[in-house]
Amino acid sequence: MSGKIRIGIVGYGNLGKGAVKAIQQTEDMELVAVFTRRDPENLHIEDTNAKAEHISKALDYKDEIDVMLLCGGSATDLPEQTPQFAKHFNTVDSFDTHAKIPEFFAKANEAAAEGKKIALISVGWDPGLFSINRVMAEAILPNGENYTFWGKGLSQGHSDAVRRVEGVKNGVQYTIPSEDAMEKVRSGVNPTLSTAEKHRRVCYVVPEEGADQAKIEETIKTMPNYFADYDTEVHFITEEELQRDHSKAPHGGFVIRGGKTGDNNNQIYEFSLKLDSNPEFTASVLVAYARAAYRLNKENQFGAKTVFDVPPSYISPRSGEELRRDYL
Amino acid sequence: MSGKIRIGIVGYGNLGKGAVKAIQQTEDMELVAVFTRRDPENLHIEDTNAKAEHISKALDYKDEIDVMLLCGGSATDLPEQTPQFAKHFNTVDSFDTHAKIPEFFAKANEAAAEGKKIALISVGWDPGLFSINRVMAEAILPNGENYTFWGKGLSQGHSDAVRRVEGVKNGVQYTIPSEDAMEKVRSGVNPTLSTAEKHRRVCYVVPEEGADQAKIEETIKTMPNYFADYDTEVHFITEEELQRDHSKAPHGGFVIRGGKTGDNNNQIYEFSLKLDSNPEFTASVLVAYARAAYRLNKENQFGAKTVFDVPPSYISPRSGEELRRDYL
Repeated sequence: MSGKIRIGIVGYGNLGKGAVKAIQQTEDMELVAVFTRRDPENLHIEDTNAKAEHISKALDYKDEIDVMLLCGGSATDLPEQTPQFAKHFNTVDSFDTHAKIPEFFAKANEAAAEGKKIALISVGWDPGLFSINRVMAEAILPNGENYTFWGKGLSQGHSDAVRRVEGVKNGVQYTIPSEDAMEKVRSGVNPTLSTAEKHRRVCYVVPEEGADQAKIEETIKTMPNYFADYDTEVHFITEEELQRDHSKAPHGGFVIRGGKTGDNNNQIYEFSLKLDSNPEFTASVLVAYARAAYRLNKENQFGAKTVFDVPPSYISPRSGEELRRDYL
Repeated sequence: MSGKIRIGIVGYGNLGKGAVKAIQQTEDMELVAVFTRRDPENLHIEDTNAKAEHISKALDYKDEIDVMLLCGGSATDLPEQTPQFAKHFNTVDSFDTHAKIPEFFAKANEAAAEGKKIALISVGWDPGLFSINRVMAEAILPNGENYTFWGKGLSQGHSDAVRRVEGVKNGVQYTIPSEDAMEKVRSGVNPTLSTAEKHRRVCYVVPEEGADQAKIEETIKTMPNYFADYDTEVHFITEEELQRDHSKAPHGGFVIRGGKTGDNNNQIYEFSLKLDSNPEFTASVLVAYARAAYRLNKENQFGAKTVFDVPPSYISPRSGEELRRDYL
């Protein structure tokens, strides 16, 4: 009995790996096991005290794990796993298919209520920290407008689109917030801005030998939905340069609210993230919210919850007394 | 019975006036009365439905006011008023004497517990929103450092110091975050920075006729504690320019945390405010948190609370369903 919060991880992709590292940075949590659909024998977990187990063994750990971090994808993993696991464990997931959140919440809520557990859904930065700031900024400044800018960030979907272009051997795409649009928002004029007006797109492309670079550039820049509406740049580089300069997964973005109070006074509220590693940061948010899931359940709360339901103090390892004395 | 949350305001300085305007921007609150130590006959309240009352009449409104916003100062008003009012009303205050918060909390807690009310203390932006971000950023990125920069903002204490200099007729002082220091922090190097290294000071001074400007500048720039350690600029202007360009009370600032995850990846978390009117914004935060005080008490919670104890959804007028659908 270490007295620590005992954590399990389901799924060992980039997010699961980030979670292992994030747990190691805490003093009040320990990793018990990582569950995988692959052969657990082949799993190399950096935390040597944790076990690698096949996902089918998860229920054996019902009494040994306080919170299960569900680190699978939103397309197919989480819609199945969250309701399944929430019957038996407190869970935290990063479900991020915005349009399906109400449906996902309902299913998670039913399962967690049945199991008298907490299912903390859609945790991360967007959804997650960005969502909190959208809600708080509006509550404080009702007369105003919210703006979300994404980037500078590597976009998986747009990088895939670039790589599908004929003559492209490899490539990445960065979404970059438009400085002009951001400055307009920060000035308090609350402009009307489309997603295309808020962002530009920069591609780094490795062409196949002998490929027609002008044609590649033209094809990318005129690609409907993905690039045609955007200010798009295409740069040609070598495979070595791509590996050297573009192998990380940076991301980030801005939530800005311009509001007016009283006699037309502009009040600008801004939250931003600049992340070298998107999965490691998202995992760090999941790990912090595991504390909240654990504490809420200890108070005999159960059912599905979101970041909107969690007081800031619940994600901190510090006592209320310490927070008031040193952080307020 | 309007079904709205019924608000009272104690104190009608800049903060109280800002609260009147902030309540007018909400749809779920109404202002019942403003309480003053002055002659209420002389109070001009912009909300014509609200009464002006002497502070001694407050208890008569025990059943007509759901939340009392205490808009007095931290030096002498709030230490007396919060414990007094919290026995009979849910209260929200902006107590901001950081060093005395634990003691203030204890007294507010005792009074609110006795009255079975909520006393939400130290609400605003610092303490308040900045505090939330310091706690959340650290919880998410335990391996890192928090930085707070204030400004660009009018500092009352430093403006007073300028005005006390011989030969100065009038003047204001702005605290301005050092761009160099901010860029260093944003780069993720987690530098060691003193308050003086993080800020510079800019003074606009109206000299008395025939005053020695060089001597005024020298006196200001070498003033111990206030200016000597800082990069300080002094500009001489006319009384007309001062009234025209420097009559607002802008403020703001930045909370930045540089943290590291995994293999030395920099993760930069940043929150900032740029406020044309400091008292109007602070009042808007108090008003939003009045919702939380009301709701917490409806759930039969009581005692002193801080922003750390309040889930984001509690300050929003929207339902959980709406927040999940449209803001998550």
